[in-house]
Amino acid sequence: MNRKMILHILGKMMGVEGLLLLIPALVGLIYQEKCAVYFVITAAVLAVIFLLTGRKKPENTMLYGKDGLLIVSSAWILWSLFGALPFFLSGSIPNYMDAFFETVSGFTTTGSTILKNVEVLPQCMTFWRSLTHWVGGMGVLVFVMVLTNLDKQSSIHLMRAEVPGPEKDKLVPKSRTTAQILYGMYFILTAIQVVLLLLGGMNLFDSLIHAFGTAGTGGFSNYADSVGHFDSAYLDGVISVFMILFGINFNLYFFLAVREFKLVFKNEELRAYLLIISGAVVMIMINIYPIYGSVAEAFRYSAFQVASIITTTGYATADYMLWPEFSRCVLVALMIIGACASSTGGGIKVSRLLISLKSIYKEIKQMLHPKSVNVVKLNKKKLGEDTIRNVYVYLLAYITLAIVSVLIVSLDNFDFETTVGSVITALGNVGPGLGMTGPVGSFADYSLLAKFVFCLDMLAGRLEIFPFLMLFSYVWRKKF
Amino acid sequence: MNRKMILHILGKMMGVEGLLLLIPALVGLIYQEKCAVYFVITAAVLAVIFLLTGRKKPENTMLYGKDGLLIVSSAWILWSLFGALPFFLSGSIPNYMDAFFETVSGFTTTGSTILKNVEVLPQCMTFWRSLTHWVGGMGVLVFVMVLTNLDKQSSIHLMRAEVPGPEKDKLVPKSRTTAQILYGMYFILTAIQVVLLLLGGMNLFDSLIHAFGTAGTGGFSNYADSVGHFDSAYLDGVISVFMILFGINFNLYFFLAVREFKLVFKNEELRAYLLIISGAVVMIMINIYPIYGSVAEAFRYSAFQVASIITTTGYATADYMLWPEFSRCVLVALMIIGACASSTGGGIKVSRLLISLKSIYKEIKQMLHPKSVNVVKLNKKKLGEDTIRNVYVYLLAYITLAIVSVLIVSLDNFDFETTVGSVITALGNVGPGLGMTGPVGSFADYSLLAKFVFCLDMLAGRLEIFPFLMLFSYVWRKKF
Repeated sequence: MNRKMILHILGKMMGVEGLLLLIPALVGLIYQEKCAVYFVITAAVLAVIFLLTGRKKPENTMLYGKDGLLIVSSAWILWSLFGALPFFLSGSIPNYMDAFFETVSGFTTTGSTILKNVEVLPQCMTFWRSLTHWVGGMGVLVFVMVLTNLDKQSSIHLMRAEVPGPEKDKLVPKSRTTAQILYGMYFILTAIQVVLLLLGGMNLFDSLIHAFGTAGTGGFSNYADSVGHFDSAYLDGVISVFMILFGINFNLYFFLAVREFKLVFKNEELRAYLLIISGAVVMIMINIYPIYGSVAEAFRYSAFQVASIITTTGYATADYMLWPEFSRCVLVALMIIGACASSTGGGIKVSRLLISLKSIYKEIKQMLHPKSVNVVKLNKKKLGEDTIRNVYVYLLAYITLAIVSVLIVSLDNFDFETTVGSVITALGNVGPGLGMTGPVGSFADYSLLAKFVFCLDMLAGRLEIFPFLMLFSYVWRKKF
Repeated sequence: MNRKMILHILGKMMGVEGLLLLIPALVGLIYQEKCAVYFVITAAVLAVIFLLTGRKKPENTMLYGKDGLLIVSSAWILWSLFGALPFFLSGSIPNYMDAFFETVSGFTTTGSTILKNVEVLPQCMTFWRSLTHWVGGMGVLVFVMVLTNLDKQSSIHLMRAEVPGPEKDKLVPKSRTTAQILYGMYFILTAIQVVLLLLGGMNLFDSLIHAFGTAGTGGFSNYADSVGHFDSAYLDGVISVFMILFGINFNLYFFLAVREFKLVFKNEELRAYLLIISGAVVMIMINIYPIYGSVAEAFRYSAFQVASIITTTGYATADYMLWPEFSRCVLVALMIIGACASSTGGGIKVSRLLISLKSIYKEIKQMLHPKSVNVVKLNKKKLGEDTIRNVYVYLLAYITLAIVSVLIVSLDNFDFETTVGSVITALGNVGPGLGMTGPVGSFADYSLLAKFVFCLDMLAGRLEIFPFLMLFSYVWRKKF
């Protein structure tokens, strides 16, 4: 373990957040809001921390496996702790725990809120709140990669900790260049969406807010009724399509760019993802048709809500708590499944679902024909025992965490639907839950303890549990 | 695959059910109930089937792995199909699907009911309903073992299909003698409970009904308010203790009988089981104390409900739907966990929980110290990769089945709590669910489709999914 290097990188990361905070400060300047000063103050504090720890590079820059996990999980927590300060200091969110919740929800691209009325927030605060989505979607990692010259092995250790999905694709960590291409695409896709939203009559501020929320699959809006505020079929369509696009494995965009079309079209996760979306849209469409009375309307609302939930974005154009139970249960299943690996979306990921289902099928085949040799394949490649075991253990840890969280949160004595829905949405980084925390609700009325548990769930969900559990067991054993 | 031998054994099994049906017929005779005739009619039909298929033993008696699975899953379905006839023919349960549900619920030792008023049932029907619990707790297997001279390998194949738990203990299938000893204990424990219930002032009929329900961890009562009807702390205590006893791995009783005390006291599953029970009792006791206002009363109701739910019996002395959400969530967690392997209880089993938690812990240790060698142990023995993988795949199949069931059942448009609670209770063979299907409710108002799904869930839960899935994939491919 290279403690000096860990501190050095974390120091740099604090500096980066300081710089990021200058963006909402600028927004505050434009809108002439006094509270913009709190971004400057927080940035100054972060600058001091950077100067103390992040400037001088230690001699030994080698990072080990667990160092990467510790850096990434610590960076996410520290960013959230400091990122919450402007909300708290300005009094926009008077309770620090609430401000922390909102920032964690932002960085983890969850989009759950403790705000009962989001529209009273100053513009600069709204902007920062949504910017956290966009930055969180990229991950803190990209900044480390850009700012620090790490050797290949060290980069891989870092990547493993942050990139979601069962198989850490070899593509990504290959080099700084690859990372730059991937994040370049993230920029470009966001920019295209902003333009399309502007064309639909949205103003620049709203376009940025909703593009940030879409790109990060976050879901914060500056309107109480979310995207439903605009009531425009065109805007619904644009956002639906972009939510789905941001839920796709980013490596596939890289393949598209290098004209490897076959790799894209034959990608099993992508096919399954699109199949699940189509299936869910049709099932819900039929189920809610009596409410809307027109196929077009039923399709529009079904498609938006399905895209929003499976990609774990969390925007809403309809209150699904008013839909029949079947539609709601389909959406809950989508919350659990989530988007593709190596996307900005949450949930257990479509590829893990595929691997699980294939394993179950393999086991049945093995029972029918005990002497046959069966293997689990994904994209025509045989999966290693280690990959499959990782998927299993991940899913069990996910469920265990969900059950423990439900038990603690149930102390607040809200109904079963609210309790379970809130935990599923937090762990899956979705945003809206069920009952009280549904699309028109908020997490405001939960106790401090419950909010703290949700923060841990959101972070654990975003970092795919293990880096996070590891940090805790580390601190627990006081080896840190 | 030995089709002749499969048909032969199934034929014998039908004969056995015919004999079993004579017991409620006798009860009907004692109480002078005319409807007892329907037991005789059904028994006669079964006798004919036996004469046609079960009398002549085929020359080749060898059974293969999948034959065992097919026999056991087919036998359970056939027993339920025929066992439902007396309810239906007599008009006690006018709808055949309902009668089938009730019988499946009985044989699988679930204890869920479609009866809105159980007290109007004739005595002979009530007796048969509860007898299915007791027989189902033993499994259909014991009859095959007693009636058919199978070679050792064939017995093992059968055992694998029916005995619950992650590791098929070598003890059980060793010989017919071992099986006889185990089932002898089942008899004796039941008899002791009957005597203790009689001593508490229960009449013989009620004692038998409640001993059957306890031994099979079923939960059918002949009173609308279940064990709460008696309102006796002594009876609550006796039933609580016996529910816990029947939730213990039966092999441990065998060890006790052969004076291998060390194996019992050092059994990790038993320790975890008792620890979970104690923890749950204390947590719920504290949580419900304000309702009962006395430590003794809070303990009494907490202990009974915890024992009833973790062993997946399902008797009730209090309506936990009136308790705070935390207590209810603890009980739901217990529904999922269930009792020990090789007991009559359902759920995922304590040993599978232990293995999962240990695997997760191992994975974290491995991340912290990548070069260390970590293994998963149970009872100080290293678990094989195959055993662990089986646990993983089993749990994933369990969850997948639960999610698919929730989706189908949600078409009935009952609330989320009712829908999810009903599926969990059916899959875990518990009995009462949440909301509408809570301790004072019933499954009566569900649609035919939902009831059918619950039947499949109860059977899949009892047979631990795979034999059952295998039967379906077999029929599906028309290879049968």
